[in-house]
Amino acid sequence: MRQAGRYMAEYRAIRARSSFLELCKNSDAAAEVTLQPVDKLGVDAAILFADILLIVEPFGVGLTFGAGEGPSITRPVRGEADVARLGPIDVASSLGFVFDTVSRVKKALAGRVPLIGFAGAPFTVASYMVEGGASRDYLHVKRLMYGTPQAWDRLMETLVDATARYLNGQIAAGAEAVQVFDSWIGTLSPDDYRAFVLPHMSALFSKLTPGVPAIHFGTGTAALLPLMREAGGDVIGLDWRVDLAEAWARVGHDVAVQGNLEPAVLLGDPVYIRKRAQRVLAAAGGRPGHIFNLGHGIHKDTPVEHVKALVDIVHELSDRR
Amino acid sequence: MRQAGRYMAEYRAIRARSSFLELCKNSDAAAEVTLQPVDKLGVDAAILFADILLIVEPFGVGLTFGAGEGPSITRPVRGEADVARLGPIDVASSLGFVFDTVSRVKKALAGRVPLIGFAGAPFTVASYMVEGGASRDYLHVKRLMYGTPQAWDRLMETLVDATARYLNGQIAAGAEAVQVFDSWIGTLSPDDYRAFVLPHMSALFSKLTPGVPAIHFGTGTAALLPLMREAGGDVIGLDWRVDLAEAWARVGHDVAVQGNLEPAVLLGDPVYIRKRAQRVLAAAGGRPGHIFNLGHGIHKDTPVEHVKALVDIVHELSDRR
Repeated sequence: MRQAGRYMAEYRAIRARSSFLELCKNSDAAAEVTLQPVDKLGVDAAILFADILLIVEPFGVGLTFGAGEGPSITRPVRGEADVARLGPIDVASSLGFVFDTVSRVKKALAGRVPLIGFAGAPFTVASYMVEGGASRDYLHVKRLMYGTPQAWDRLMETLVDATARYLNGQIAAGAEAVQVFDSWIGTLSPDDYRAFVLPHMSALFSKLTPGVPAIHFGTGTAALLPLMREAGGDVIGLDWRVDLAEAWARVGHDVAVQGNLEPAVLLGDPVYIRKRAQRVLAAAGGRPGHIFNLGHGIHKDTPVEHVKALVDIVHELSDRR
Repeated sequence: MRQAGRYMAEYRAIRARSSFLELCKNSDAAAEVTLQPVDKLGVDAAILFADILLIVEPFGVGLTFGAGEGPSITRPVRGEADVARLGPIDVASSLGFVFDTVSRVKKALAGRVPLIGFAGAPFTVASYMVEGGASRDYLHVKRLMYGTPQAWDRLMETLVDATARYLNGQIAAGAEAVQVFDSWIGTLSPDDYRAFVLPHMSALFSKLTPGVPAIHFGTGTAALLPLMREAGGDVIGLDWRVDLAEAWARVGHDVAVQGNLEPAVLLGDPVYIRKRAQRVLAAAGGRPGHIFNLGHGIHKDTPVEHVKALVDIVHELSDRR
């Protein structure tokens, strides 16, 4: 999950000086924000500060981040003609600022902890492009998928190609692992995932630089996990709405898992946080290939000292200070 | 699912004359709206027209339905003191209009098809009362659950008691089955469901009039289904994000299931609708105890003739014209 965020005073101080998109594009500032949780919280890896929608902007659909309103796309992709107009993008020139951020972070980390890059998964990015923003029912997406499956496939292929080049660019710049976020995939039935998403996700994972671990994460995926595993990834991310032991057995113990702690637990006191962290670790049973993490992002109202307490608790309980 | 709604011209005509809450409280109009889908679509059962939040109003927390904005509660229940103030409500006097609607519908149906009553499940109703409206993260609810579990249990007990009397009142007035909607339960992990919800749902089902089938439905429940079955209900409702055959095997074939068709399919043409309906029926495998239904409510943009086509297709394919 993104580690930097509004729950940290250091982040808010930098964020106050620029818009969200400006912050992402300013490699100096984005690198600084990436490093804040490493210095402040003692986490075991740095997570690139960026946004899953940065890749949307070069397609020229009009991406904006309204103050407090979330992202919006002014020219949504609604039909075959809109899809046909989307050309391949020049990732190196249009998203080079992200690769610069990666290089800067790597240099500043000097090997202290590894750096994880990331991108949005094609379905989730396509959902934003088609719906024009966040959605509850994803009706435009489903209309496109069910009504004009060829156009849907073309849109997904376009995004797979761009996303693979984007992630490989991050790897070339120094990212030691990459995460693919399929944040909205939980709206699909298993049948629809198999028909409209799985082949594209397989293609994406097959295009990634070999030898670099890839993390495959989504939310609301209790029924999709075996299919996500089939699609690819060395680590399957679990949200908080599954039992870790059961989910790991379903995806297979030959793949690693991460995630699962309910983020709202961090609003409770450290005694309660310890109890819940213990439960996640017990479900993992000390098995190699378990990476402790939250099941989704950190809520902005979370006290930063609770996040720090969690990191310390996990280090203590897993005997890795 | 609620059958009447904005996708029907007959509903919009009646709805134009009053607010949503006025319509619910006008037993004549609510009965008329309940009967519209029976007459127009040929469905096999009538579903009471009401709202899961009607039960909230007698608690005096200030329920309003803003135009197009969904429900809002002006005095949300945020802590122990708020919970302690919630007295038992007089269901017969405060919700008698719903029982009147049931009686009127029963009389008008004259045995043509059975009538299904319903209520919101305590967790979902509590979520509205605590959050003050719809929520994305349910942070206030989770704070209350994790931080003051006794207050949470008391809130749930208050709602279980009121909901049981409300459903039994519908049954006494003539409802031949009842459905309990736990619409927002999908935000909880299996552990949290077991600790904070399951005992209360068991209590609710044990208080319902014996011999009347109860349907237990939620959305986003892929990981919760076995626990929901353990809690109670003669029929387990499935949303569209699970595989019906797999889900039925998990809850056990000694319980009936309903639901599962992706509602967005109804935006497609009847040829596509037939294909998807066939797939649901194939997953059910002709096993007794399968009730065909959507996996969630009908979207307002759905063409009414598509809904009619689905009813006809299901009757034809299941050989029950």
